[in-house]
Amino acid sequence: MDITIIGSGNVATQLAVALKSEGFHLLEIASANFEHARELAERVKVEAVAHPSMVNPMVDLIIIAVTDSAIPEVVKQLPATQAVIVHTAGSVDMSVLDRFVNRGVLYPFQTITKTKEVDFSHLPILIEAANTLVCDVLNHVALQLSNKVTYATSAQRKQLHLAAVFANNFVNHMYAIAYDLMQQSDLPFEILQPLIDETAAKIKSIPPRQAQTGPAQRGDVPIMEMQLNALPTPELKEIYKLLSSSIIQSK
Amino acid sequence: MDITIIGSGNVATQLAVALKSEGFHLLEIASANFEHARELAERVKVEAVAHPSMVNPMVDLIIIAVTDSAIPEVVKQLPATQAVIVHTAGSVDMSVLDRFVNRGVLYPFQTITKTKEVDFSHLPILIEAANTLVCDVLNHVALQLSNKVTYATSAQRKQLHLAAVFANNFVNHMYAIAYDLMQQSDLPFEILQPLIDETAAKIKSIPPRQAQTGPAQRGDVPIMEMQLNALPTPELKEIYKLLSSSIIQSK
Repeated sequence: MDITIIGSGNVATQLAVALKSEGFHLLEIASANFEHARELAERVKVEAVAHPSMVNPMVDLIIIAVTDSAIPEVVKQLPATQAVIVHTAGSVDMSVLDRFVNRGVLYPFQTITKTKEVDFSHLPILIEAANTLVCDVLNHVALQLSNKVTYATSAQRKQLHLAAVFANNFVNHMYAIAYDLMQQSDLPFEILQPLIDETAAKIKSIPPRQAQTGPAQRGDVPIMEMQLNALPTPELKEIYKLLSSSIIQSK
Repeated sequence: MDITIIGSGNVATQLAVALKSEGFHLLEIASANFEHARELAERVKVEAVAHPSMVNPMVDLIIIAVTDSAIPEVVKQLPATQAVIVHTAGSVDMSVLDRFVNRGVLYPFQTITKTKEVDFSHLPILIEAANTLVCDVLNHVALQLSNKVTYATSAQRKQLHLAAVFANNFVNHMYAIAYDLMQQSDLPFEILQPLIDETAAKIKSIPPRQAQTGPAQRGDVPIMEMQLNALPTPELKEIYKLLSSSIIQSK
């Protein structure tokens, strides 16, 4: 299978390296930034192409791995092709590729650290396909890279993003509040780390609702009142009240 | 050093086993439940005592490891003693032991799983002491069990509990909301696990405030509005709004 990659950033680089090491044949790398394309092309020993309009349309799979906002422009520039053609963006609808009959999405659900080399084998990959040909090709490629391949529509990818805001962004904000509270009492934040690790690990074996503990879950009103009083700002009191009442309602 | 333990529940058992294996000499185990005391005493090969009033006061250290609400009763029952005497409860003030001159607290900051054997070496232990004699004894004992020993007053322990509500209980509730959102879109929750692990691991190397990502942190209003609309209940919208605005204010 001949694969061409458009882009030379993190995702493009990580995919190029991983595909190459899985034995796929990379045909060309194209990027708006020709210097970057050349660097990446040299690294994986393939040809660099100066512009998306110049890629060979007689290829099996074209992967557009550029920033979300650059996808529509790349789509315009590409030559007409029967190749399977996908983008790698979680929050962009597959319909951005409507020009191409064999369109799809190959979305590696990246974690937040962009600098580290990505171990694709443990990374969930979400695929979407306009037809069964695309589905077969993407399944084949994705399963070579990862053992966690899930079919997901554009709407499902949006919902995944929303869930990730709670599981990552809001969780991290809870850590930040705990960090401040510890600092205010001259306590080392590290004391909380084993608890934080165990909280994250526990939900691998039981659903989070069943793992819920604490004063709100127990309905321990005196402790909740004491803790509300101890919080230093109206904003933190508001968060404490809202989340406690949400836990109580979820029981 | 001769040590007597009051109690036969989880903490008492874990402490007895750990102290024994560190080479401390356990003198007696006393418990309101004599059967339990006998079982534990047999396990660590020491004498069981039928009632706290009957323990030998000529011992170096007495550890009261009973449920929070049972501590005052045990304190009443114990004989007068010059021994160092501590309880193991995070949320109980040291002053509950005012009867005894050499009082203190030895609080293993337990994680939530009560069934597993506890590895004390990675467990933070908080100590509090009424005088330097107590402080020396507790430091000696705690440092044998763990390399994470911190001195903390009763007020600091309360604040730690409050921080733990955010870092554990509220975090777990965020996981539960993410779980529901994934289920509503027929997505496997496991897709989020690598992200959850990385979020928990990241704050070992950088403070959580610096690790913050997401639409609120970026000030991405269109995404926030889209996500607010996608949330299925007024309660979830309220949580999303409050936490997003709190993240924005923290920048």
